[in-house]
This record gives sequence, C-alpha cells and structure tokens, in this order.
Amino acid sequence: MSDRKEFRDLATPPEAHEAIASLDLEPEPETVSLSAARGRILAERVDADLDVPGFDRASMDGYAVRASDTFGADEADPATLELVGTVHAGAEPDVFVGDGEAAEISTGAVLPDGADAVVMVEKTDEVVDEEAVEVRTSLAPGDSVMPAGADIAAGQRALGPGTELTPREIGLLSALGTDEIRVRGKPTVGIVSTGDELVRPGEELNSDAGQIYDVNSYTIAAGVEEAGGEAKLYPHAGDNMDAMEAALTTAADECDLVLSSGSTSASAVDVVYKVIEERGDLLLHGVSVKPGKPMLVGRLEDSAYVGLPGYPVSALTIFRTFVAPAIRGAAGVPEPRTATIEGTLAAEERYSEGRTRLMPVGLLEDEEGETLVYPVDKGSGATTSLVEADGVVEVDADTEYLAAGERVSVTLFSPNVRPPALLALGEEDPAFGRMLDQLRSSRFLPVGSREGLRRLRDGLPDVAVVAGPTRREVESVELRSWDREWGLLVPAGNPEGVEGFEDLVDSDLRFVNMDSQTGLRASVDAEMDRLSAALDADAKDLKNHIDGYGFALKAHESPARRVLEGKADAGVGLRATAEKLGLAFVPVGTQTVRVRANPARVEKAGVADLKAVLAGVEDVLAELSGYSA
Amino acid sequence: MSDRKEFRDLATPPEAHEAIASLDLEPEPETVSLSAARGRILAERVDADLDVPGFDRASMDGYAVRASDTFGADEADPATLELVGTVHAGAEPDVFVGDGEAAEISTGAVLPDGADAVVMVEKTDEVVDEEAVEVRTSLAPGDSVMPAGADIAAGQRALGPGTELTPREIGLLSALGTDEIRVRGKPTVGIVSTGDELVRPGEELNSDAGQIYDVNSYTIAAGVEEAGGEAKLYPHAGDNMDAMEAALTTAADECDLVLSSGSTSASAVDVVYKVIEERGDLLLHGVSVKPGKPMLVGRLEDSAYVGLPGYPVSALTIFRTFVAPAIRGAAGVPEPRTATIEGTLAAEERYSEGRTRLMPVGLLEDEEGETLVYPVDKGSGATTSLVEADGVVEVDADTEYLAAGERVSVTLFSPNVRPPALLALGEEDPAFGRMLDQLRSSRFLPVGSREGLRRLRDGLPDVAVVAGPTRREVESVELRSWDREWGLLVPAGNPEGVEGFEDLVDSDLRFVNMDSQTGLRASVDAEMDRLSAALDADAKDLKNHIDGYGFALKAHESPARRVLEGKADAGVGLRATAEKLGLAFVPVGTQTVRVRANPARVEKAGVADLKAVLAGVEDVLAELSGYSA
Repeated sequence: MSDRKEFRDLATPPEAHEAIASLDLEPEPETVSLSAARGRILAERVDADLDVPGFDRASMDGYAVRASDTFGADEADPATLELVGTVHAGAEPDVFVGDGEAAEISTGAVLPDGADAVVMVEKTDEVVDEEAVEVRTSLAPGDSVMPAGADIAAGQRALGPGTELTPREIGLLSALGTDEIRVRGKPTVGIVSTGDELVRPGEELNSDAGQIYDVNSYTIAAGVEEAGGEAKLYPHAGDNMDAMEAALTTAADECDLVLSSGSTSASAVDVVYKVIEERGDLLLHGVSVKPGKPMLVGRLEDSAYVGLPGYPVSALTIFRTFVAPAIRGAAGVPEPRTATIEGTLAAEERYSEGRTRLMPVGLLEDEEGETLVYPVDKGSGATTSLVEADGVVEVDADTEYLAAGERVSVTLFSPNVRPPALLALGEEDPAFGRMLDQLRSSRFLPVGSREGLRRLRDGLPDVAVVAGPTRREVESVELRSWDREWGLLVPAGNPEGVEGFEDLVDSDLRFVNMDSQTGLRASVDAEMDRLSAALDADAKDLKNHIDGYGFALKAHESPARRVLEGKADAGVGLRATAEKLGLAFVPVGTQTVRVRANPARVEKAGVADLKAVLAGVEDVLAELSGYSA
Repeated sequence: MSDRKEFRDLATPPEAHEAIASLDLEPEPETVSLSAARGRILAERVDADLDVPGFDRASMDGYAVRASDTFGADEADPATLELVGTVHAGAEPDVFVGDGEAAEISTGAVLPDGADAVVMVEKTDEVVDEEAVEVRTSLAPGDSVMPAGADIAAGQRALGPGTELTPREIGLLSALGTDEIRVRGKPTVGIVSTGDELVRPGEELNSDAGQIYDVNSYTIAAGVEEAGGEAKLYPHAGDNMDAMEAALTTAADECDLVLSSGSTSASAVDVVYKVIEERGDLLLHGVSVKPGKPMLVGRLEDSAYVGLPGYPVSALTIFRTFVAPAIRGAAGVPEPRTATIEGTLAAEERYSEGRTRLMPVGLLEDEEGETLVYPVDKGSGATTSLVEADGVVEVDADTEYLAAGERVSVTLFSPNVRPPALLALGEEDPAFGRMLDQLRSSRFLPVGSREGLRRLRDGLPDVAVVAGPTRREVESVELRSWDREWGLLVPAGNPEGVEGFEDLVDSDLRFVNMDSQTGLRASVDAEMDRLSAALDADAKDLKNHIDGYGFALKAHESPARRVLEGKADAGVGLRATAEKLGLAFVPVGTQTVRVRANPARVEKAGVADLKAVLAGVEDVLAELSGYSA
C-alpha cells in the first residue's frame, strides 16, 4: 500500500477544508413544482413575465368614472352621472364608460374601458331608480385604481439566484403564475458501510459473533439531508471484500460524493486504499485534529471521496466540521443562523496533544438563561455520547488550558439542537424516568448516586437523583423523595430457594452486582457490613466468598437480565424490575430515592416544571411494585 | 345570516389564541422508518431493549487473558501464557481461554469465554514461534474490555417522548437496531380556495376578466409544512358556490384543520358562513388586530376551521401569529430558536387605531451588525411586500408612538428568513440587476431615483441607485457610475416615423410616461424643458399636448410593453429594453446611473461584496445595448 506510506505528515485543518473544497460536488440544477419548492434554492433569477395585477383594478367598492367628469364636484354640488352597468370581480366588463357615465364596480374588478378612476361608494348617492349616481367629490385620474403592474410589472427582477424559497417567496412565485421552478440540485451523497461486523437496523443481530448495528450510516445520512444533500446508503454483504469494492465504485458512479466511515477491520481499510489508488486519487490522509487522524480525502472516479473516523461521535464531528459545509456549498444552502451558539465553559479543561481538538460538549442553561458548555467525554466509542453531546468546541493546537467561565463558540451537531430544559443525573430510577416523560425537554445521565453527588457539588447539573446511603454531604434542595424496595432477583419460582446474601456466600450461585457508583451498590455494601457484624466475619472476606461480587454492571436492569438469560443465578435490583421481567424477588431492604436540586437553579423554569410533575409522584409510584411515598 | 350579526364585538388577540387552542388539531401518532424519521417528534419514550455493545468487547488489539494469570507480572518478570487461538472482530470466538492461556484478539472482537481482560499488544512479546506470549504487566479483571451494555443497557431509558429526531438521535436509534419509530402525526391542513377570480399557477390567466393567480393557497401551504403540518389544497371550480361548499366539507372530512382565506367576492363569504352555520360552530368572528378583522374561528364537522384575511401579507401574518403555533403544538414541534429576532427600529412609527397592530417589517443589518427594523407599508394588497417584509412586530393597541432606536421583537415569517446582506433601492437598471445576481443575498426596492435619494438621506438603505438629473443633494459615497441611452420606444420599424418628443405634441400618438419618482421621468421632464426653450413654448403647455404624458407607470419596461401590446404608440425607456423586446428605439439622450452608498455602511460586508462585483461592471455593460462605462 504505497499510498499509505506517502502520507507521513498530517494535514492541517485548513488544508483539509481546502482539499474538500477542491472537489466538485455541485450537481446540475433541476426543475421542481411549486408545491415541492419549499426550502429549495433558486438556481437562476426570476423575472416577472406578466403584470401583477394583470389589469387596472378597482381598489374600492364604488363607481368607475372618468375623473374629468367629477372636476369641481363636492358635497354641495355633486356631479350626476348616468349609470351604464355593473362590473363584478372575476368577470370581464361588458360596459364602456363614456363622458358623463359611470358603472358600478366591486373591489378587485377590472376597470372598464373609458373609465380612469373609481369613486368610493360612501361618496355617492344613487338617484332615480338606480339609473344615475351623484358623485360628491372630485377625482384625479387613477384614484382608487391599482394600475396593471403596480405590484410587480413584467420585466422586473422578482427574485435573485441563490434565494431560499420560504413561504413568502412561494407566494410571489404563485402570483407570477409559476408552477415549476429551476432550483439548485441536491448533491447526492453515497454512504458506504465498511465494517464486516455491521448490521442494518431492523435485521437480526448476532451479538455472540461480535456484530453491532450500523450507527454511522444512518447518522451521517441524516446529517447529509440536513445539510441539503440527498443520502443514499450502500450496505455491503458481510466480509466480502469484492462486495465492498463494488459498493464503493457503484456509489462513485451514482453520487457526487462518497463517504465511508472507519472500520475496526484492517482489511476493509485496505480495500478503500486499493479502490482509491486504482480508480482515483488520494488528496490527503489524516488531519491533525482530534478526532480525525484517520480522515481521508480524495477522488474516486468522477466523484469525491471522504473517509470518516469510525466512532459515532468522531464521525459526526468530522462530518459536521469538514463535510457538511461542502455539501451546503454545493447545494447553495446557507449555514443556518442556529448552527452555532455562544456559551460559557462550565469547568476548566486541560489539553495538550499538539493538534487541534474538536471537543464534544453538552449544553445547559443556568438560572439566568446563560448557556453553559461542558465537555462530554464518555470515550468517543460510546453511541450514547451522541445524544449527550450537543456540538463541538474547536480548541487550538496551542491552547493547553481553558478556564471555567471562558466564552466558547459551539458548532451544534444540528441547527435544531438546543439545550435541554432540565439536566438531571445520578441514580437510575424507573419512577423518576416516568416523571421525566412528562417534561417537555430533559436530559438524564445515569452516572449513579455517588458521581451524581460529586457533579452536584461541582455545580453542573440542575438536579441529582440519589438513592441509598451516602457519605458525601452536598448542599442541595430536596425537591421530593420516595422509597423503593431492593433485593436479589432470581429466576422465577426461586428454584435455589435464595433468602438473602448469606445464601450466596460459599455457594455455587453466580451473583451479579451493581457498579460502585450506584446507590444500589451502596445498599449492597451496607447489607454486607450488617451481615459481617451478625456473622462476626470480616466484610471483605465475606464479599470475596460471593462468586461475582466484584462483577459489577452499571445499568439497573442489567444484573436482572443476566439472570433472565441464565448467565447468573442472582442479581441485585429492584422489586419493580423483578415484576417487569417476570423474575422472583428476594427482598433485602428499602432505600430512599431523593431528587436533590442545585440550590442556584431552584427557580429555573425546567426545575419548576419538574417540581410540578413531582407533585404528582404518588400516581406514578402507585403504578410500580415496591414503591412508596 | 344570523351568525354574522351576533358578532358585533371583535375578540381580543388572547381570546383568538384561546379559541384556536380549544380546537383539537392533534392527529394520531404514526410509525415511520428510520430513514424517514429526521425532523419528526418521538410519540413515546424509547427504552433500549438490547445491550450496546451486545457482548463484552475488546477495546484494544492484544491478547484476551485471565487477569489472575498476570498478577505480579512486570517488565522484569513477565507472565508467559500459552497461545490458544485468535478472535477477529465480527466473528464468533472458537476458543476458550483457560488458566495460563491467552488468545490473540482485535479491537471490537468478542471477549472469548474464560478470559476476563485484554492486555494491549504493546505490553507483550510473542515467543517460541507464536505458541506463547509474554505479558509484561499486571491486569485487573475488565481491563481493556467494554462490557456488554456499557454504552447503553437493555431496560435503560434512551429517549424521552417529544424528542426531535436530529442526526444524533437517529444514530442512537440505529445503535438500538430500531428501524421503525412511533412519531407524532402531522396535522393535516386543508386549504380551500374561495375566490371566484383565483386561478392556479401554471394555468391560463384571463386578466381581461379580472382573474389573478391564487397566492394565499400556496403561501399558506408552505407555512403549514414549515410548522410541521401536512398541507392539502382544495381548489374549486370557478364561481360555482356548490363546488365551494363541497370543497369545504370534503376538506373538513379529510383534514384536522381547514383554512380558507378571504375573498373579495361577497357570495364566497356567505357560503363559508352558511356551511359553518349548518355543519359546525362559529367560535369567533373578527379579531381586534390590524390586519385580522376578517378572521374567523370555528368548527366544521369534526374538523377545526380558521378563515384568514384575503391580502397575502395579512393572510401570512395572521397565519403566522395565530395558526402556526397551534399547528406546531399539534405536531409537537418546538418553536424554532430563529423564529424571532430582536432589532432596533430604524425610524419612528405612529399609530392610533385602538387595536393591536401586527406591523409587517423588513430587516437590515447596519455597519455594526445590529439588526435594523423598518416598517413595510406598500399597501397590504401587494404581493411584493411579501418578499420585502421579513416578519411582524406586534404593537399594543395603546401604543401610539414608537421612537426610532426603540428595541423591538420581530416574529419572522419563516425561521429561515434572515436580513439581506445588502439593501439597495432606487432606480431600476438592467445592468445593476445583473450585478445583484452575482451577490449572495440582496434586496432591491425599485422605488425610483427620487425616493431612493430621500431614503438614503434618512439613512436606511446601504445603497441607492440614482439615474438622470437630480435636485436633492444627499451625502453619499459614489461606488461606481455608468451611462445608459434612453429615448422613445416605438413599434418595430417605427411605422409613424417618430424622431423625438416634438413628434408627440398635438399628434394622435398615444404616449406612456414613467412615474415621477424615476430618473427616466426626470430626463423626460428635462427634455421637455429643453424643447420648450427651443420652441419658445410653455413646458407645461407642451406636456398637456402630449396624449398620455400624465399616464405614468412605475416599472422601467412597462411603457415599452404597452407599446408591444399595441396599447400605446410610444413609451419612454432604454435602448437595452428596445433591444430585449424587439421594439424600435428613438434615441433622446444619455443619463448617468450612479451607485451611491450610505457613508456609514461603506465598510459593511454586503457593500464590500457589491464593490467587488462593481469592479467587473464593464463585462456586464458590454452585454447590454446602449450602455457605456
């Protein structure tokens, strides 16, 4: 792979922008119907080719007259004109208004030949059985007449090229009688899935064989469409490298741009290199940004090619930073005003890798409506950080330290992204989850009670949910609390007759514990302390004699699900979970769940909304087993 | 029409909002495929029903081992483990790792049974023909392993109801294997065209019969879709009132909401009343806002009904203010962050009608990027004010005066609306129009040279285009100027042998003049002065002896087009227009077109862009007849 060796130096971010800009993604303009034109971009300017209105139009109900017949007329000395007919809106006048004559006319109707003005009905009186009308005012030619073309005239420039068609432009185009418009084409973007292990959503997943669902293809396809492109997915079958090569060349054939995202499979990467080497041109390999080192830019036959990193947040970050602007440019779509947001860094951040960092961040509004920005660093491999991160802050290669309170600019992952109305974190709790469902917009991070308290102390979240015994004292305002029963979840019917933790000690039973950050684990540890005192044994020793005590999972249903799958004999969990999953429940204790608010945020709208919802907590608790207020 | 009489009092705007909120527009949720889900709103919460990853996953290239086999190992004293196989990503392990054993493993691969940790390849050495591996570090269980469910675990709440699906949420849903999602339904909105005189765009227009193209149906349909609804047009045939009644009831049958917009035809209004009276319920008739007096709110069978005013800007204003929020609410779509913008009123505004005013305004950025807001008042009947007005400022009924410099909040007609990069106004000029085509975003108001200068003096526009002789002195920076030939445009071949204005005096020839605001007219008047001096006649008298001298049109091609249609024998205009339309040209003079910039705005980006385009004016002038630099 000679190409791979040539690219020892990483390109700078401006070089990467330039390389992508040098690729031609712009499709031919196309013709769309007016009803499909919303959001499209005019390819060429539109001149009016007719007058609007197309006729001299009465702008009042009244009488069409010759102005000269009314010269000198006033209240005291009206002009009397002979009534010669009536003109309705939407009908061709069948009357000519001569000297000394008038015709009744409605608003919007065509001014009849001979007339040059309209007198409003309020300034007239009909006389002699409607055969004549008295006009009590003097008129000038053109009074109460909107001449043909007064709104827009044939030959006038109506809309410029590059105009985005919003409802009002569509209104103007319909006034001009346009039902088909030339608009900028949408660049077609082919997305080739390159991982052997990737399965399309909706298809069967074989986890035992290490398969995972394809995340990037769908994320990037939605990003392409948001940027004004047309996305086309090219899945490929299993680990067949010829099929992947065929997918790449078919996509290049059919699309203006081909994207693929990194694969953990080395052979897939080799195929990409091979295809580009044989049928295209690699412009750059690797960009000096984190994440983005694995980014490729090149040509593939007559199409452009960009290779994105493999981790979802990294792929979206690189797409958003380098590729989306090129798609928007080719589509003629301006960057939405909401594409970036200014905010204040909520905590200091250190960094020193000598390359530009595209730091994924979450957003939050403080009590004054100020946007707070905090780094999201769950390991960029996590899909869930996709929904925790709202956008990216670009940090210069030579910036080693960002202070808390510093102003930063966030490029949002989507112009529709906005800070959640409520940021809650801490212990997972089914009752609290149901209450979040009643809120307009919230974000919950299941970091466990301990980590929740730590972050509450640091002042970031609006609310922390804390369960079980806690050691740390953190200033907060308790919004509400309730109790939940916890214990051991065992197979239905409790075949081993487990009655408590003592039955797990020195037995063959495989146990699954909860992560040490959780309140459930704190309660388990407390129970072991109680047990060791009761048995006069060393707690640490006791724990070591439970098979799996150290095997801890983070999500509150996970131990129970291991039991359900037959991979364990007992797991710690809630009575509510046993009920939900059809497992037997061995009660051990009751723990209190407390919703603790950041004292500074109690008045924040999102917190107030939560308080209102918490007021109805009893209804939610009543639906769940093992809960009480 | 008893209903019409009952509603003597206009409703207040809050009452109108309340009446619309009382109507149920909310459709049933629907199921969409993942690839069609972007922008939709989750109808219900989504819980993970599988672990992501679905298996314990190696997060490094290296060897899968039992951590206990490495206890105490270090650089000096490595642990030697027997190599029992290899595990690739995307494949099921066919190996069991027992005591003292290790298996080669790639990033992303399934941790084989027996192993509980991965040692990175950098901390190992293969020995004895790859049959064993030396591990130079001690490991803990779980090292370099991402356990199943570490990203998101089965049973965890993944997304809450009401979440808007942007690319990142689509990424999470694909990680969960979801290919179909329950989303909020889009309310169906039927738009019934009520004017007898309305013709659908694309169809033949009979202007002589007072027909006009239907503007509101298409504008409002686009607005409905922007607000998250699904629009359905119900045109009706001609002046058949039964057809209109049928369209209304069909729409009510098929849609959640029916909209119609005012018609100038009284009979159409009567049909609406009759249908609602017979088959529904009129909740309110008329709202105390300007414009909006004619607004109706009611029920029509099982559907909601709102009647909008007839003029396009009024219809869009009332739609945007009262109806769009209700559609968004029913669709579950949040108000876009860009739906309103703050700005500074550019000129004082007086008002005193005792009802809330929804004032259409245009936007503009000044030299400091501050948003300026100016009222657009072209008469609300003008379709063109649709593209001049960017949104609406709500002025309280008791506010009689708004000072220049006052902060106002503008509700934009579309969240995608933004201030033009350049606001130019003044004389229409084909060369200038072509130069505007080269700019990204501009707005040109063809108000004529005189009005252009007046507005430049008042400081509103960035640039005024001024042609011909001017009396007013206004401080400005001339960006560029060029000359254009003007004269009389007559039928091809000049059958009457017209040689100048003198031939129009006391002849049978019908002349068409330009509006007195234009530079073309100023040149015509100057020519008449010259002629009267040459002939020793009174200028006013001479003008009175030209048939049509007082008949003035605003658009620069309009006099020529009247000649083309045979409605006039001569019109004032440009040589370029004669060439374009195939008319004969009688040269009278040359006038200078000056592009004059607001001195405060010379450095503004949009003006700088214009200057760059003007630098290439010679190329544009070379394409047009009668132009010179």
